[in-house]
Order: sequence, then structure tokens, then C-alpha cells
Amino acid sequence: MTATTRARLSPEERRSQLLDLGVRLMATRSLDELSIDLLAEEAGISRGLLYHYFGSKQAFHEAVVRRAADDLIAQTAPPAEGEPLERLQVSVTAYVDYVLANFDGYVSLLKGAAGGNDALRAIYEEVRAVLSERIFLEDPNGQLIADTPHNRLVVRGWSAMTEEVVIAWGTDPAGVSRDELLAIIATALPALVASAG
Amino acid sequence: MTATTRARLSPEERRSQLLDLGVRLMATRSLDELSIDLLAEEAGISRGLLYHYFGSKQAFHEAVVRRAADDLIAQTAPPAEGEPLERLQVSVTAYVDYVLANFDGYVSLLKGAAGGNDALRAIYEEVRAVLSERIFLEDPNGQLIADTPHNRLVVRGWSAMTEEVVIAWGTDPAGVSRDELLAIIATALPALVASAG
Repeated sequence: MTATTRARLSPEERRSQLLDLGVRLMATRSLDELSIDLLAEEAGISRGLLYHYFGSKQAFHEAVVRRAADDLIAQTAPPAEGEPLERLQVSVTAYVDYVLANFDGYVSLLKGAAGGNDALRAIYEEVRAVLSERIFLEDPNGQLIADTPHNRLVVRGWSAMTEEVVIAWGTDPAGVSRDELLAIIATALPALVASAG
Repeated sequence: MTATTRARLSPEERRSQLLDLGVRLMATRSLDELSIDLLAEEAGISRGLLYHYFGSKQAFHEAVVRRAADDLIAQTAPPAEGEPLERLQVSVTAYVDYVLANFDGYVSLLKGAAGGNDALRAIYEEVRAVLSERIFLEDPNGQLIADTPHNRLVVRGWSAMTEEVVIAWGTDPAGVSRDELLAIIATALPALVASAG
């Protein structure tokens, strides 16, 4: 990027570009390691300008995590067509790929959300809610699972299971293949619903 | 308890008694709320004596959580006899009852362990390891699940699922009965193993 193209961007575009950079930097770093200094260095602009865009390190972190959450939601959108179970499999595969490609930042987000950072917790809960709602969505192709309190509890458990196995596998695959990992997750939901139903 | 009986206890017995009290107090409190002051008041002894027994608030918390973890491990021990699946059901029921009876402290432990407190994390991981090993234990009655890397990943996911649904249900049952909760958990493991196998 040259100074000329940079100058043409609106403040919103520039801020958005910086958030994308923040998300890329966070993929292989914890939030603690994602400093304003690092972003300034990578973006080639001053710390002062970054504080102008984001206000504080905490606000910068929240904005980056929110952008990452939006990316995750967009990338895991199920295809418009297909059987409910096939669409779930596509969505699960995209989720696993996203987490593995952004592993350190994702683990760091979970840690922050679980450990009592309310802003991170809120973003985390929102993502989980969006992903869960998709499962109960009724559309012309049918509904994967009936929307009952019982099934909502099952889906919640399945979400926690999914997160756990992806992170465990990303940390140490222990000889389990990616296809086996995907099969564990995608076959689990119908099996859980059937067994508990 | 009178001063006379108290005086007869050895320091180890007295410390153990204080830990039991700490575990009882933690059942309905977060770790943050479990102060040396509170323990002193409930035990009717001086703060100075408690520091003598435990050294620091952090060491006191670790000792209470370790005691609680030992209690959980003891109370969820599966019966010596019975089919593997029946024994699992007994153990799962005891786990659910333990978490519900010690809800605030358990949630607080998870939060501390997930949020980066290394001492709590170590105790949490140890409990999870003990509970998981039971599932792979071979005994004269047979083995519930073959001990493979694949099945270890499934059991890990099932553990996370179990924790999640118990805490979600303990926070808000949303009309789901305790029996339904137990059924979700106990039937999930064989279903997961069968579906992914």
C-alpha cells in the first residue's frame, strides 16, 4: 500500500482495514500479545493515530474480536440449498477450518470469555447464539431439530463438545485425522438428538 | 464443638476440619467471596491462626479446591459391580448431584481454571483426567469403550458437553426435568461412540 492509496481511504475504511490487520495478527497470537505497538509497527502508522481510531487497547481488542466474530459467522453460513444434515456438515467444516486457521486468537478469546472479561463474554455468547439459531431454523428444506427446551440443551452441549474437540485436536491431533474429527462433530448432533429423544 | 474437643484435635485434623468448612462455604459462593475473614468468622477462630494453617489466601483457596476435587472424585466413584453402562449412569448421576449441590463454587472453579489461574487449572485437569480414565478402565465386567486416540477425543468432547449442560440446567432448567438431563448425559456417550465409530 502506498501513501497515495492510503490517503484516499475514508476514516471508516481505514479503521476497517486496521481491524482486518488486527484479526490477521491475532490468528497466531493471544490477545495479550496483540498490542497497539505491534499493530502500529505492522500497519506502518503511529501509535497516536491508532489511539485516535480505537481509543484504548481494550477498545481495540474488542473491535478486533468483534470483527473476527463477524468473519466466523459469515464464513460458517450454511449453503442455501441442500438437506439440513448436509448443510450442517458444510457449516461445521467451515467452523473447524476457521478455528484451526485462527487458533491462537480463538483460544485466547475463549480464555478471556470464560475468565470473566464481560465484553469478550458478550461477543462469545452472541456468536454461540447465532450458530445455535441456525440449527433450529426452519426453511423450505425442512428442520434439522425441533425447537424444544430439551433440544436446546442438547445443542448447547453439542456446541461445547465441538469447541472442546477442535481445540484438543488443534493442540495435539494424536493420530486422529481431520476427516475423523469432522465426522465426530457432524455425526454427533443427530446421534445426541436421537439418543436423548 | 466445645473448646475441649477442639483442643484434642491434631493440627492435621484441625486443618482438615477447616478445609471441610471451606468446601461447605464454597458450595454457595464464588472463590472471590471465600475470604479468610469469612472462614475465621464461621470457624470461630482468629485470622492469624488461619494464616498459620494455610499461609495465604491463594494457598487457602487451592487447598479448599483440592479438597473439593477429592470429594468429587470420591463421590462419583462408580460401583464395583454392574454392567459398564449401568456403572457409568450411577457415576454420572453422582457427578450431576455433586455439581448442583456445590454449584456456585463449581462454576467459580471452572471460571478460574479457564481464565488462566494455573493452580486451579491443574486441579481441574486432574479431576477431568481421573473421571476420563474411569471410562477406559477395563475390569472383569468388560470395557465401556476401547482406549483409542479417537475415542479419547470423543470422551473429551462428552466431558465438555456434560459440564456445559449441567451448568446450563443448574442456571435455568427451562422446563427440562432432572431425569431428562441425566438421560441426555448418560445416553450421549454410547451414542457418540457408536455414531463416530
